[in-house]
Order: sequence, then structure tokens, then C-alpha cells
Amino acid sequence: MSARIFDGVAVANEIRAEVAPEVEAFRARVGRPPGLGVVLVGQNPASEMYVRGKLKAAGEAGLRADLERLPPTATLRELLEAVERLNHSEAHDGILVQSPLPAAMGPDAERRVFDTIRPEKDVDGFHPLNVGRLVQNRARLVACTPSGVIELLERSNIPIAGRRAVVVGRSDLVGKPMALLLLHRHATVTICHSRTPQLAAVTAEADILVAAIGRPAFVTPEFVKPGATVIDVGITSLTDRVSVERLFAPGSKRRETFDRRGSLTIGDVHPSVEEVAGALSPVPGGVGPLTIAMLMKNTVTAAQDRAG
Amino acid sequence: MSARIFDGVAVANEIRAEVAPEVEAFRARVGRPPGLGVVLVGQNPASEMYVRGKLKAAGEAGLRADLERLPPTATLRELLEAVERLNHSEAHDGILVQSPLPAAMGPDAERRVFDTIRPEKDVDGFHPLNVGRLVQNRARLVACTPSGVIELLERSNIPIAGRRAVVVGRSDLVGKPMALLLLHRHATVTICHSRTPQLAAVTAEADILVAAIGRPAFVTPEFVKPGATVIDVGITSLTDRVSVERLFAPGSKRRETFDRRGSLTIGDVHPSVEEVAGALSPVPGGVGPLTIAMLMKNTVTAAQDRAG
Repeated sequence: MSARIFDGVAVANEIRAEVAPEVEAFRARVGRPPGLGVVLVGQNPASEMYVRGKLKAAGEAGLRADLERLPPTATLRELLEAVERLNHSEAHDGILVQSPLPAAMGPDAERRVFDTIRPEKDVDGFHPLNVGRLVQNRARLVACTPSGVIELLERSNIPIAGRRAVVVGRSDLVGKPMALLLLHRHATVTICHSRTPQLAAVTAEADILVAAIGRPAFVTPEFVKPGATVIDVGITSLTDRVSVERLFAPGSKRRETFDRRGSLTIGDVHPSVEEVAGALSPVPGGVGPLTIAMLMKNTVTAAQDRAG
Repeated sequence: MSARIFDGVAVANEIRAEVAPEVEAFRARVGRPPGLGVVLVGQNPASEMYVRGKLKAAGEAGLRADLERLPPTATLRELLEAVERLNHSEAHDGILVQSPLPAAMGPDAERRVFDTIRPEKDVDGFHPLNVGRLVQNRARLVACTPSGVIELLERSNIPIAGRRAVVVGRSDLVGKPMALLLLHRHATVTICHSRTPQLAAVTAEADILVAAIGRPAFVTPEFVKPGATVIDVGITSLTDRVSVERLFAPGSKRRETFDRRGSLTIGDVHPSVEEVAGALSPVPGGVGPLTIAMLMKNTVTAAQDRAG
């Protein structure tokens, strides 16, 4: 048996195609496109890549998107001032500050930044007010990755109601909102984490298993009930040949990619899970494109709500 | 085997004894006691009883407590005006609007009221900003019933970290905050609800089982793993003799109470669970007194935070 492999790019394109006429309608009605302001501090290569992807998608969606760069030496105060300018900008409906922030800004910096972004412009869904509304099942802006997972499941006709869902990872940005979204769609939801004993036995109860831990290839076949739907949210860049050779057979496409690039993007799910799962969201090409599509959708939602 | 029965009154008294010197210190420093404003609409007998209990506890704790009564015919607008007066009152640190509200106020009335209470005076922990902070594990004001359950578990030396906890019920006021509090204390948490198939099989996985569904005696022994800790959050007033006779043996104390009063307060947990559980929080005398103690604690916390 080999799992059905979800095509995250195709589903993301579906969502982006739905967003396009909404952007047009907004522009016709309000006289300007929905606007996204992105702030990038420093030059982290992964962040550069993510931001580039987001700006490209925004441009393709017909959004206005502006990037404000701050040097790696910027202070938290300077960053908060940049956020405040976007808070007060008429042209910007959504604000995104790319994580991670430089360590020098302090351990609390991301929290301070997310608290400062106006809830109605919080297209990442990280502000506590939006998180609280999510708990109460009435959020307008929900974190993009977990809401992208829901879109992927629903548009792939995977039933959620009445199923057992297990989320591995309890982060504020993915694990907890993911569990809430599944709960509101009537799954029986379990959240596991680093302190869960006999983890594989718990995850093997899942009809829908979401792995969001950031440990490459951690979820092996014994974690997975045969036929289950497995969503891989992890994303790690492997640069170590031994690991790659342990995971992928000689002559495989992934080995070729590694040989060509010197690095390989893999998720939390081990490649051999494909032989056990009923359906699988791959990395890359699964949740990643959906995260970006949901950011576009959130920006349009924020713009519509602001324009009234 | 017969379960250890938690003494909710004793634990609540412990908390109230800890709150008392904080009230004294606040009064000495600020020159007034922490203040609680309670709004009661109509004359629902259960609400009257709850409010009386809260006012009495506040008085005993040395708090200022004021009750504002609105007639059953009051409009939502009048209620929101009463809330706004308390929002602006210097003397009131905490605001509590007793549920349920008259049906004539509309299905959205409670939500509108909770959204109107200033987050820093929201001693019920229902405002979305406080709920979002709870998700992010940095709340100052958390819903009283679930935080009371945590106090009961911790002060009874029931280990939470690494255990499997199952919460039955996914309400905004109990089920969801309960699950989050257990998760932050490193339990592996499952939330079940009316759409969970084979519910008893799921709850039987629990080391800690919290029943918060409002269905009297619904949780029978087959729902419970032998030796598990069972927390009964349900509270129903039974007035129907047949049900009482089905649940309690002739000559039992509970039957006597029913014969005397014509009603009997029981929880979501069937009396025979006592023979399977390792420990059990009873109804009455379990979670109820803790809810009130946590309200006192939250009022003092709100007062301290407001006074800086």
C-alpha cells in the first residue's frame, strides 16, 4: 500500500484563485488594493526565502505588499516603531513581522511584537485577542499554517467530524491552534508533546495525525495507524549526508536533490510512513504553499473588515 | 476499593486563608479593599444562590462586594451600561455578570457582555484577550472553575505532568480552558464531546478524567480506568424521584436529603464510580467551593495589577 499524496500546491492554487476576484472586488469598491506590510529584521537566509515567497504570492494575488528591512543590529524599540507605523498606515491592512527575531532583542521580543500589532491587522493570527476568539470559535484571523491544514483536509474530502485527531507539538503558532480548529470541526482531539510517555502508542490512535515538532523524520511507521491521514508540518533543512543516506535509498530523487544542492528539505515524518498512511501531506509541497495562500486570504479578510 | 474523596471545602478554605493576608496588605497599601461588582439580571433561583455564595465569600475575605440588580425585563443595553459603570469605577477591580441572562436579551448577549468587561477587571476570565493569554500560558485571570480544578489536583498531590488527561465537554467556560491548563502542566490531553464515538473507551485511557458535560450521572464505571482521578464539574438539581431512586440505595444519606428537600444536587459522575476511581471530586463539596475561592483570588489579583 502506498499513501495518497496530497498536492499542497494545487490546493493552494485553488484558494488563491478564489482570493483573486475578492481582491478585484475590493479594489473596485475601495479604490486601492488590500495592502500587506512585511517587516524583516536581519538577513537570516531561511527568513529571506520565506519573505520572498510571501511577497511574490502577494504580488500575484494583486495585493500591495511592502517590505521594510531593518538591520540585524536594530533594537526592539526600532522594530516596535516600524510596527506602529504600519498600525497607523491607511494603505496596510495586514502586518507580518518575520520570525525569528535576532536573539539580541531578548527572549520576549516576538511576544512584544505580536502584542503590538493591531488585532485587526494581525494576519498571522498571533495576537492574544485573535487567539482568544479562536478558542471561542469566532475568529476572523487565524494562524496561517493550522488553518491551511484544515483547508487541505477539507478540500481533500478527509472527514474530520467524529474522528480521532492527534496533534504532536503544542506550540502557540501551530500545535494549540491546530487542536482548536480540529475540535471545532468535531474531532476528538489529543495533544501530545515532549513530555508524553509512549508517544507512538498515543499517535497510533489517530485517524488524523498532525506532526508539528520540528524533529526531522521523527514520526516513523509505528506511530501511524494503517490508513490514517498524516499531515507533516515540520520543515528542516538537512545538510548532513549521513542522515540523508539513512533516510533515502541510493538513486532516489531525494538523494539526487541532495547531491545537487547540498541540502534537503524534509519534514517530521519519516519517508517510510508513506507505506502505512492512507494519505500524506508531503514536505516540501504540502502545508508550506497553503500557509502562504492563507496569508493572502487573511490579508483580504483584514482589508474587507477594515473597509467595513 | 473505594476512592479517596477530595474535600473541596477544605482546599477552598486553604486558598481563602492565603488570600486573606493579601487583602489586608492591599488595603494597608492602597487605602481601600479590593472591590468586586456583581450584576444579576432577573430572579433565577440558582443564580440567586450562586450570587449569594459569592457575596458571602467576598465579605468573609474582606473584599468590598456590591450587587447591582436589574429587573428580568432589563434590556441588553441597560446591562451593558451597568457594566460600563463598573468598568469606570475606581472602587471595583473585578466585574462579574451572573449567567444565564434572560433569553429575551438574545443569543449573543453573554458574549457581548463578556466582550464589554475590561480585560483587567475580567475576574471570570471570559474576555477573549484573557483567553488568548491563557492559550499562550501567560494569563493573569483564568476562568475560576478550571483553575479551581488545577488547585484541587495540585494541593491533593495528584501528579499531572506526563499523565493522560481526558476532558469531557468542550465549553468555552470549562472544557477548553481546562484542557489548556492541563496541557501547560505537561499532561497529554484529550478533549471529548457529544460527537465522540465510543466515548467510554476514550475516557478509560485517562489517568485524570474531568467530566464537564452537564448530564447527571452520565459517567458510569465503564468510563473510568481503575485507580484514575475523576473530577466532577457537572451540577444538576434532580427533582425527579425515579431518577434519585435509581441512583441511590434506600436508606442512603442522599435519599434522605432528597426526601427532606425534594431535590438533590448531583454531578456528571455516577455514584458507583466511587468503587472504581482512585480519587474523586464529589458533587456537592468538590469543585463548587473552589470556583468561589478562585473568584476571590482573581479579584485580589486584578486589584493588585490595577494598583501596580
